[in-house]
Amino acid sequence: MRDFSADHRWLSLNTATVRKQGDLVQIIDACARHGIRAIDPWRDQVGAIGLDRAVRAVRDSGMELSGYCRGGMFTSDAAYRIEARDDNRRAVDEATALGAPCIVLVVGGLPQYSRPGSAATKDIAEARAQVEDAIAEMMEYALKAKMPLAIEPLHPAYAADRACVNTTKQALDICDRLDPQRSGALGVALDVYHIWWDPDLLPQIERAGKDRLLAFHVCDWLVPTKDILNDRGMMGDGVIDIKSIRAAVEAQGFDGYSEIEIFSDDWWEKPMDEVLQTCIQRHRSAV
Amino acid sequence: MRDFSADHRWLSLNTATVRKQGDLVQIIDACARHGIRAIDPWRDQVGAIGLDRAVRAVRDSGMELSGYCRGGMFTSDAAYRIEARDDNRRAVDEATALGAPCIVLVVGGLPQYSRPGSAATKDIAEARAQVEDAIAEMMEYALKAKMPLAIEPLHPAYAADRACVNTTKQALDICDRLDPQRSGALGVALDVYHIWWDPDLLPQIERAGKDRLLAFHVCDWLVPTKDILNDRGMMGDGVIDIKSIRAAVEAQGFDGYSEIEIFSDDWWEKPMDEVLQTCIQRHRSAV
Repeated sequence: MRDFSADHRWLSLNTATVRKQGDLVQIIDACARHGIRAIDPWRDQVGAIGLDRAVRAVRDSGMELSGYCRGGMFTSDAAYRIEARDDNRRAVDEATALGAPCIVLVVGGLPQYSRPGSAATKDIAEARAQVEDAIAEMMEYALKAKMPLAIEPLHPAYAADRACVNTTKQALDICDRLDPQRSGALGVALDVYHIWWDPDLLPQIERAGKDRLLAFHVCDWLVPTKDILNDRGMMGDGVIDIKSIRAAVEAQGFDGYSEIEIFSDDWWEKPMDEVLQTCIQRHRSAV
Repeated sequence: MRDFSADHRWLSLNTATVRKQGDLVQIIDACARHGIRAIDPWRDQVGAIGLDRAVRAVRDSGMELSGYCRGGMFTSDAAYRIEARDDNRRAVDEATALGAPCIVLVVGGLPQYSRPGSAATKDIAEARAQVEDAIAEMMEYALKAKMPLAIEPLHPAYAADRACVNTTKQALDICDRLDPQRSGALGVALDVYHIWWDPDLLPQIERAGKDRLLAFHVCDWLVPTKDILNDRGMMGDGVIDIKSIRAAVEAQGFDGYSEIEIFSDDWWEKPMDEVLQTCIQRHRSAV
């Protein structure tokens, strides 16, 4: 397991962590100021400044990417199927332009939440089947661009509205079915927030192995959690044994960035520099 | 699958559903008025009126019980171990006096939340080991009283503070280890709120079989969920395909009560009669 206590060279910032404090250029500037070498930008942040400007800002800063957030929201009724497909193809194009190593997939929950306007349903099994079909379809496009896709299992609390892939096992089952040869085209993005509770986690990380572990995200689970989406904690402030999970991931050979992604109304209210300083401290002490 | 559309003879009311509207005697009276034949009372409600009075109220009303809520909160540090054990033994005594068919076990999360004052830890694997040891110990006492124990897997959102048993598989694994002969002494209480998201749910219900299915609880998952504990929905108001889950449970031979348990700040604000009338309507239409 790598020693993170002395520096933060393996810290990447998911730019949603400070999305209320500045635009993508300002975030990149702040990261550069703090010696942060990598980011994982969100599509809406790229869209807000324009792709060309985002590409230049990344290139000029020498910033690496640890991923691109996000593809997915695959579930829809027939009326939105093409929209979803094309939207995800654009995500591949953008990720390629930005030089991202993978696209993180938040696969969508029930269609009425993933693609609003879709007919309402309670059939989560059907949603899951749709997701698998859509990932297979997206892979064809992504393969041509050599852009790996990282399925992110989301906490079961998001099963209805954000992602019906809710465990590492479920994500790896999809990987095994769609990419049995472990080509590198498909893998998982593991965020400790979503997976820490899973009694099957350690065996599944072992099953994933290095070639399926495309991204590793950290934050913390607060008790109590005041808001199920936007009350994620700074590492060290909650109950997740982050070091143990990182140890398990690194035992498989994962040697990429430890990406900090915190959706938090509390942290969004603080100055960007304060958030980044705290991220760096906690990366050293709690990750 | 039983037809619930014409009557509510298989409706049981978990008394937490109207716990802010009256004491246990008032709740029993209201149930009797509405032709509800069974309840699942909580220990604090029994304690508030005294066990003897609760026993008389149940007996005088002819009310059946579908369970007794709740035993558990097994996780603690050494200083609280005996307290937890004795507390659970008293739960067995009370359940016996009340004529409950089983005790529902909410097993506890990390010790500092289950038994406040316990030393803080992030070791959920150790908490899970403690739970299994404590259920084994409680079973010895419960067996003498012929009181079955029903492990309730709780939604992973409660893993830290309420229950570190978070899937039906995990609960059944414990059952198989502690009661391999399927004696009837140990089983599960399945609440659709906690398990609906689980991609492994249907195989696990089949694995459980009739002799492990000791209780079946219903409410609904609202989108958005405003509060992770107290924003559960009335059946039909959320996204859970309750009928499909009940069909799976009944396909195994489950023929007991469908117990309504709704923790909801919204429903707690409504008059008891209105809540019970709505429960009855939704039991017929959405369960």
